[in-house]
Amino acid sequence: MGQAAAGAEAQRQGEFSCVSEHAEACIHMENEVRHPLPRPLKRSVSSATLNETSQIAMIGVQRSHIESLDYDTPDNDIFKEDWRSKTGSEIVQFVVVKWTMACLIGICTGLVAFAVNISVENISGLKLLSTLTFLESDRYLAAALVLGGGNLLLVLLSVSLCAFVAPEAAGSGIPEVKAYLNGIDAPNILSPKTLFVKVLGSIGAVSGGLYLGKEAPLLHSGACIASFLTQGGSKRFKLTWKWLRILRHDRLRRDLITCGAAAGIAVAFRAPVGGVIFALEEMASWWRSALLWRVLFTTACVTVVRQAANNLCQGDNCGVFGYGGLIVFDMSVVSTNMGLIALVPAMLLGILGGVLGSLFTFLSRKIAKFYSGWHSKHESLGKVLQALFVSIITSIFIFGLPWLATCTPCPSTASCPSSLPSGAYKRFTCASGYYNDLAGLMLSTNDGAIRILFNNNSNNEFQYFSLVLYLVWAFALALITYGLAIPSGLFLPVILVGATYGRLTGKFLKSHMGFENIDEGLFAYMGAASFLGGSMRIAVSLCVILLELTNNLLMLPWTMLILLISKTVGDLFNVGVYDQIVFIKGFPFLEEKPEPYMKHLTAGDVCSCPAATLSAIERVGNIVEVLRMTDHNGFPVLEMTSAPYPTLHGLILRSHLLVLLQKKDLFSQNASSLIGQDLKSCKVDFYKRGSGKGPTIDDIQLTAQEEDMFLDLHPFTNISPYTISEDMSLAKAFSLFRQLGLRHLCVVPKTKGPFPVSGILTRHDFMPEYVLGLFPHLKVSKWRRLRIRISLFKIAGKWWG
Amino acid sequence: MGQAAAGAEAQRQGEFSCVSEHAEACIHMENEVRHPLPRPLKRSVSSATLNETSQIAMIGVQRSHIESLDYDTPDNDIFKEDWRSKTGSEIVQFVVVKWTMACLIGICTGLVAFAVNISVENISGLKLLSTLTFLESDRYLAAALVLGGGNLLLVLLSVSLCAFVAPEAAGSGIPEVKAYLNGIDAPNILSPKTLFVKVLGSIGAVSGGLYLGKEAPLLHSGACIASFLTQGGSKRFKLTWKWLRILRHDRLRRDLITCGAAAGIAVAFRAPVGGVIFALEEMASWWRSALLWRVLFTTACVTVVRQAANNLCQGDNCGVFGYGGLIVFDMSVVSTNMGLIALVPAMLLGILGGVLGSLFTFLSRKIAKFYSGWHSKHESLGKVLQALFVSIITSIFIFGLPWLATCTPCPSTASCPSSLPSGAYKRFTCASGYYNDLAGLMLSTNDGAIRILFNNNSNNEFQYFSLVLYLVWAFALALITYGLAIPSGLFLPVILVGATYGRLTGKFLKSHMGFENIDEGLFAYMGAASFLGGSMRIAVSLCVILLELTNNLLMLPWTMLILLISKTVGDLFNVGVYDQIVFIKGFPFLEEKPEPYMKHLTAGDVCSCPAATLSAIERVGNIVEVLRMTDHNGFPVLEMTSAPYPTLHGLILRSHLLVLLQKKDLFSQNASSLIGQDLKSCKVDFYKRGSGKGPTIDDIQLTAQEEDMFLDLHPFTNISPYTISEDMSLAKAFSLFRQLGLRHLCVVPKTKGPFPVSGILTRHDFMPEYVLGLFPHLKVSKWRRLRIRISLFKIAGKWWG
Repeated sequence: MGQAAAGAEAQRQGEFSCVSEHAEACIHMENEVRHPLPRPLKRSVSSATLNETSQIAMIGVQRSHIESLDYDTPDNDIFKEDWRSKTGSEIVQFVVVKWTMACLIGICTGLVAFAVNISVENISGLKLLSTLTFLESDRYLAAALVLGGGNLLLVLLSVSLCAFVAPEAAGSGIPEVKAYLNGIDAPNILSPKTLFVKVLGSIGAVSGGLYLGKEAPLLHSGACIASFLTQGGSKRFKLTWKWLRILRHDRLRRDLITCGAAAGIAVAFRAPVGGVIFALEEMASWWRSALLWRVLFTTACVTVVRQAANNLCQGDNCGVFGYGGLIVFDMSVVSTNMGLIALVPAMLLGILGGVLGSLFTFLSRKIAKFYSGWHSKHESLGKVLQALFVSIITSIFIFGLPWLATCTPCPSTASCPSSLPSGAYKRFTCASGYYNDLAGLMLSTNDGAIRILFNNNSNNEFQYFSLVLYLVWAFALALITYGLAIPSGLFLPVILVGATYGRLTGKFLKSHMGFENIDEGLFAYMGAASFLGGSMRIAVSLCVILLELTNNLLMLPWTMLILLISKTVGDLFNVGVYDQIVFIKGFPFLEEKPEPYMKHLTAGDVCSCPAATLSAIERVGNIVEVLRMTDHNGFPVLEMTSAPYPTLHGLILRSHLLVLLQKKDLFSQNASSLIGQDLKSCKVDFYKRGSGKGPTIDDIQLTAQEEDMFLDLHPFTNISPYTISEDMSLAKAFSLFRQLGLRHLCVVPKTKGPFPVSGILTRHDFMPEYVLGLFPHLKVSKWRRLRIRISLFKIAGKWWG
Repeated sequence: MGQAAAGAEAQRQGEFSCVSEHAEACIHMENEVRHPLPRPLKRSVSSATLNETSQIAMIGVQRSHIESLDYDTPDNDIFKEDWRSKTGSEIVQFVVVKWTMACLIGICTGLVAFAVNISVENISGLKLLSTLTFLESDRYLAAALVLGGGNLLLVLLSVSLCAFVAPEAAGSGIPEVKAYLNGIDAPNILSPKTLFVKVLGSIGAVSGGLYLGKEAPLLHSGACIASFLTQGGSKRFKLTWKWLRILRHDRLRRDLITCGAAAGIAVAFRAPVGGVIFALEEMASWWRSALLWRVLFTTACVTVVRQAANNLCQGDNCGVFGYGGLIVFDMSVVSTNMGLIALVPAMLLGILGGVLGSLFTFLSRKIAKFYSGWHSKHESLGKVLQALFVSIITSIFIFGLPWLATCTPCPSTASCPSSLPSGAYKRFTCASGYYNDLAGLMLSTNDGAIRILFNNNSNNEFQYFSLVLYLVWAFALALITYGLAIPSGLFLPVILVGATYGRLTGKFLKSHMGFENIDEGLFAYMGAASFLGGSMRIAVSLCVILLELTNNLLMLPWTMLILLISKTVGDLFNVGVYDQIVFIKGFPFLEEKPEPYMKHLTAGDVCSCPAATLSAIERVGNIVEVLRMTDHNGFPVLEMTSAPYPTLHGLILRSHLLVLLQKKDLFSQNASSLIGQDLKSCKVDFYKRGSGKGPTIDDIQLTAQEEDMFLDLHPFTNISPYTISEDMSLAKAFSLFRQLGLRHLCVVPKTKGPFPVSGILTRHDFMPEYVLGLFPHLKVSKWRRLRIRISLFKIAGKWWG
């Protein structure tokens, strides 16, 4: 029992890791069993004392303390009792609640998306219409004021909400949800407040003309809705229905939040199957067939809601511009019969997409870092000013750039010039019978611009100069907009940039290279696919989403080819844009595979040793002290009575200990009287609360007398924590940790000694920053990585050529 | 060292489990640490002595001994040395070989599929054409003889190959490949011989008019091709290229065989994305994003080959009927605008599909059992006669049933009656200007029949009587054909049956229920979806495959709805048809989730104890004896020198021991001289051979002198095997075992004693037959399961209102 206090005392100085006085012993112990390493290891004790790599991460534009999620079911007597007493109808309850929730998530996400869509279409439609009306009557200043003023107001609304109410709602939300599904919990990331700001902010930002999309925010909204519905009731509002209690487990909530994310994508792109596959390919860290099945159910519900809402809006019921079909950019009539010779430009487009995509990723990192510094320096007001600045720039260019374009004579077939906010043939400052092609793109919603670019049978609608200008503008603006303290999606800007250079390529091929039977709209589509693949590095789900977006199966082989090439080329330079943001934001994200250098290390090399331990029958005061002095979340429980050395009885969670400390009737004056107490009488509720903080150690008030009593931890301890031997290679330990979705992994010594546990591995102990901080010589230099890539190129060239 | 022999001796009597003399001790040991169980456990020793559940399974129609695959990388010094000496260019080699293989698999599968398709189309086309020509001139007997004789010959060829050359090629192959990807290795399951017979047999069976498809055999062929290409070279043909050595690891081969399976589905349904998702949803047991990506690459290669081959056959280059486009059953022009009222019949169709699908599954189990008995009783000749019998029955009905149908007057729009083998309007015995609708379905290939049924804008083409007759015939024939000793796929028959009742429903609704604007072809499609969902219980991949088969995105919501309903309804009754075959064939398949009763047991309750162990420095003779007396594949290695009790040093594999026993220069007279020997000098090749048996213990000849020498197992032992405490709940142990894809899981006692390992868990110890054999009271009766389902219905009913 003294050991517990000693351990706690030790940990007080060095939070998650060895403290100096113990570190020497650690090294000594490890050296006995360690196998030859490439260089003699000398652990730098100063860096080992703190594992400060990843306790804090950036959620939206807010620095937050993060925790890990518990996916493991505690294998203790309480849980077993609970499970055994489960009746058939409780199992049925479980199934019913699970599926009802999946359906509800779909319905709510569908309704939210519908509301967002209608609002954006109406607000930005009205704004554009009045701008165009003023232009029609040559009142340029009034037009500019309406456009710029409207944009500024909408953006101000959006950024104020984000800066002052819920900074967690800023950005796309995809990295945050991805991190959550990897087991990283951050406060407010999925709270109702975040949902509220995300929805309103997204409406403001998109209709405010900023160069961003509403797709990724819808994904985050879907996840928030799922989180809200799976809270397991609310104590504050007296909604603690017994049936909902079962939802209070991290694993189930993870599954349902995956459903929510899929629902968001499904409704944003109207791609139910694409949403399922996106959620599983890009978002989820753990897949199961059963989950696939439930996610599909959710997206089916979304589709039904979406379809019903569309039917409602068939007439003019939803305002001026509230119409949208099942397919967003219908390209089903475009001819894909280009001949095999078109393979060459398609492949070049793929390569171009990969190069531009990785350039985009690279630049976005620089800008994200700059913004992050700015945000922490200038606080909320800085965020607001920054967004307003970008809004003003955007408005200036939207209104200013079309002046540079020359007027083009109208084609005879179309109604041109048109004064509607949608469509390419906008008159702007041109004479009657002429149109300004750049104004067509600029004075549309982003969705509208994509439709114009994808439009087939519209060859030669654009001039080179306009397209190049638009491309440069779009690329630059996408970079500076993403990262503002505002809900912003990256899909739409990326599609727009890609479509622009795709259309440029198509136009060039058609008029200068003799490719007669290609369609510029098809090339715009292919360009969009290449830039998506090159920047986001997603393959299968993008294939399906693009298929569902455009409804043309014959384009599938082209899409696959381009995505494969652009992803491969992009991967040669850097990681995808979402993975990079996960990294920049500082999430302790567990990748799918261990890093190569982990094969050189053993678990004992990095684990936090010694862990603070508890006795199986422990003085209450000691427990309180350990909880107060460390911020560990799991404590090994030792059986002290076994001879000659104590043995490991199991692992107990901090949250469970806190519950136990509130149950004072479990305490006993006499340690020996605790054996064999009846468990059924003590109703201990270990279910986790859905959101918000649980009680902390500071909430617990104990008298000195109570602190001197004893508590029997036997029935509450998880008796079979996962353990590994300390000479297991770190790579293998990582695989175990990652694949089982663990929070704690006990490291036990190979040969028995006085300490049955040499330490505990947590998520943070696997982070590159921490491990490479301990063993800096393992760092692979950037140049070596580049050399490997170059030799890959060479050998591949030899092989294929 | 004495213990090893004792353990071996013990295991000689009871192969994988406790023998009677040790069982008592086991029970005693466990009882000390076990926590209260619902009923006092009494292990029935007689049943515990043998773990004979699952050493044998049915591969095709051949009983084979099965082994598990090793996915774990051995964490020993040899491997570490190997890994550390890896240069950059070797890593590049690895990447290049992996991706080249993925591409090659795609190309080869594409070519094989093309050959199969062309052959089937030409052979059956010629056969049908001559039959129809004879019919045209009213020579009915000649027509019958050509049809029946041709069928008989083709089936004879196919079944003879299957019965005498490679019985492993019989059946669909999907359960076998699925089992392989779950970690179950059976001899010849993926051998070149099997591939050869599968391809030829499939051509014979399909063109021989049997009621089966070529889709699933193509999947198996793809897997065989992958296995063939990833053998890592062939010693026999001197193709032992160094670059290919890296392929000789079970995990990499598993990945590439997943690619092969996906390629097979992709080319069979011309559904590249559907193939990927099918492979991951239905076939693979372990998913990773990286795998998704490689599988997509393979199916992209398949698509390119397929497209190129199609271009080749655009004219008449490939014989009479060798044309096929990218989309198999194009339905892109069908109108889906049926109104919301059509939801009701669609849902009813889903329910019908679920009911019929589970009935089909139930009956197919009965028939599979009957066939299995017949096959083992009558040997090869019995298999041949059985297939010929079914062929004759099929031919009789094909030719006989259309006589029962009445002639229908030709519609004015189509060229009718037509004498082409494809198309619905066959004259058969009708007068000119009339057609026999049943003959149209019967005298077509199965693909052709589906096209006729799916045909839109062809309402009232069929009469009720013909459709009902065809439905009964198709359902019965699908049942008796599947399970013959012949390569047979189930997709096509299932689609046909579903399309028939779907069309019947559509016809009924249109003519009697006042649904004016529905299309019979669309209902045929919906029926097919419902029966596929109801029998196979696949969801997402079927959505995508059906989408790619028919190229109509607007049908997607309907498809999702129907698949969801039919799968849910079907799941209420039994498992899907493939899972059932996996079970019938006796594969020790590890499901995704542990069975509920496993929560009542601990690892110690079921593990085979005590395991045969070896000393870290062991007498060669002892090793040989242990290998000879047990058929274990992994042996714990104990460090005997540590005090007071031996400790677990690691685990060594049988295959590695066999390699070591052939390296006689590793032996030493003196145990103490073995410490610290140089590893670099001993080149031990632990890479696994791709196919065929490795050496067995009987291949190893040692002199008595050699047997008295010692061998140091330290550097060859996997020093970090996965271990669990013996009181871990069996469900948790199962999850660990399944998710990490293990072969051996060491169970260690909670308190230290003379034995550091209490036993080893293998795949077989988790099988329900074995566990429920030990603890029969845990069996949940069928009636209880039914009661749970009924209460589910009731509560769901209440819930939904």
